[in-house]
Amino acid sequence: MAIPKNSFVLIDYTIRVKETGELVDTTIEEVAKNENRYEAEKIYEPLLVIVGENRVVRGLEEHIENFGEVGKEFSIDIPPEKAYGERDPSKVKIMGMREFLRNNIIPEVGKTVEIGGQIGIVKAITGGRVLVDFNHPLAGKTLSTTYRIIKIIEDDVEKIKMLLHRRYRRIPIERFNVSIDQTKNEVVIELPREIYLDRDLQLVKALVVEEIYRYIGKYNSIVFIERYTRAVEQPKQEKIEVKEQTQQQAEQLQVQQSSSASQ
Amino acid sequence: MAIPKNSFVLIDYTIRVKETGELVDTTIEEVAKNENRYEAEKIYEPLLVIVGENRVVRGLEEHIENFGEVGKEFSIDIPPEKAYGERDPSKVKIMGMREFLRNNIIPEVGKTVEIGGQIGIVKAITGGRVLVDFNHPLAGKTLSTTYRIIKIIEDDVEKIKMLLHRRYRRIPIERFNVSIDQTKNEVVIELPREIYLDRDLQLVKALVVEEIYRYIGKYNSIVFIERYTRAVEQPKQEKIEVKEQTQQQAEQLQVQQSSSASQ
Repeated sequence: MAIPKNSFVLIDYTIRVKETGELVDTTIEEVAKNENRYEAEKIYEPLLVIVGENRVVRGLEEHIENFGEVGKEFSIDIPPEKAYGERDPSKVKIMGMREFLRNNIIPEVGKTVEIGGQIGIVKAITGGRVLVDFNHPLAGKTLSTTYRIIKIIEDDVEKIKMLLHRRYRRIPIERFNVSIDQTKNEVVIELPREIYLDRDLQLVKALVVEEIYRYIGKYNSIVFIERYTRAVEQPKQEKIEVKEQTQQQAEQLQVQQSSSASQ
Repeated sequence: MAIPKNSFVLIDYTIRVKETGELVDTTIEEVAKNENRYEAEKIYEPLLVIVGENRVVRGLEEHIENFGEVGKEFSIDIPPEKAYGERDPSKVKIMGMREFLRNNIIPEVGKTVEIGGQIGIVKAITGGRVLVDFNHPLAGKTLSTTYRIIKIIEDDVEKIKMLLHRRYRRIPIERFNVSIDQTKNEVVIELPREIYLDRDLQLVKALVVEEIYRYIGKYNSIVFIERYTRAVEQPKQEKIEVKEQTQQQAEQLQVQQSSSASQ
């Protein structure tokens, strides 16, 4: 059963390296826990895949598009060319020890290093020479993938909430108050207070607007609403995913703006 | 005629050093031009003084509060203790040349330098020693000030527009669409599109909210509205006071967020 482009699909998945069975990624907390790969920082919940968006490995997205079916568990092998690509031997480089020291890195075998903007893994060290593999760690691997479509989202309000939630995954989806004004053909989004002081918020809005027009279309305008009520006059400290220094920045800004007046 | 605290007063002023007549600051373009002190970057327009806010030199604010009268031109001398303070001889320091070189500064007599977070003026250089005056350049000076109250703002909508405009002085005041919803006792502020991508916007909102509650009070909530209409789907390049790299940041954010999904 094909699933058309621009569909909003929620999936659970588990990806392993086929050869070794090693867990690469999973949306299922239990799987991560059972294999001692649980990360407290991570949010375990179904992932939003917008068919055609190209955010997940190509082999997975293509399978969803061509064979996807709600509720059915699929187990597929994704070859390197539809995942992280083939290994490129020319990306394994011999580098001088001096280049590492210049970057304040002490190379050790197995260590992940960043040199000249590229990330690589130290494979061997002999005398003053360091062998570094700049291939993606999953290049050349076939990925053994299990996935299940939890739901295909049909409702525009729910789609928009998902677009917002995937930008702020720590904010529960129901905290985004989305409605459609049918007469104006307008989307109205009331944002939760916890994100008001996020320095990226304005960029996120622009990106979400772009996504709504691209994947949902049809509306004339999108309105964002932020409400400051008097009772909670001072921004609360319960900010989520907001940089720590925000309050400090606010104070600095205050000072800067004061000093730009005549005093 | 006294003007009560928290009044919103628009003034034109010209401030000079009494001793020398040197122009310190003016809101009047013609004055700046006549004395070859015109700065193309600067916005020449009446300044908002909120009585009691303490953003302008104290002597000026006190005079407005105690004697202010709309339309009348006042000429007053403001002594150092009500302007930039007396000169503090202990702020004139002898420093080693080495400290400058360590900060990549080549000291020259008359040059303004920043050392250890403090701004000073190089007064003399002898051998390896540099004499720096860290007093404010206007410390110890009596300021000869002429000012005129253009208007006292009574209308809350206009007050709020002024609070917004002074944060974004390049945005004409009428571009801020402010209204009061009497039934909800709520201020509704629709922001102009030019500032949507300003990275400081969220901080500015929080500061303006705080100012509205502090100087105007009486409302229960303040709502900000930003509208993205389809015709101008892509953020225009006509941003004002917005850092150049914003688009680039948007793209980086896009990339980062993509890579945090499974690919």
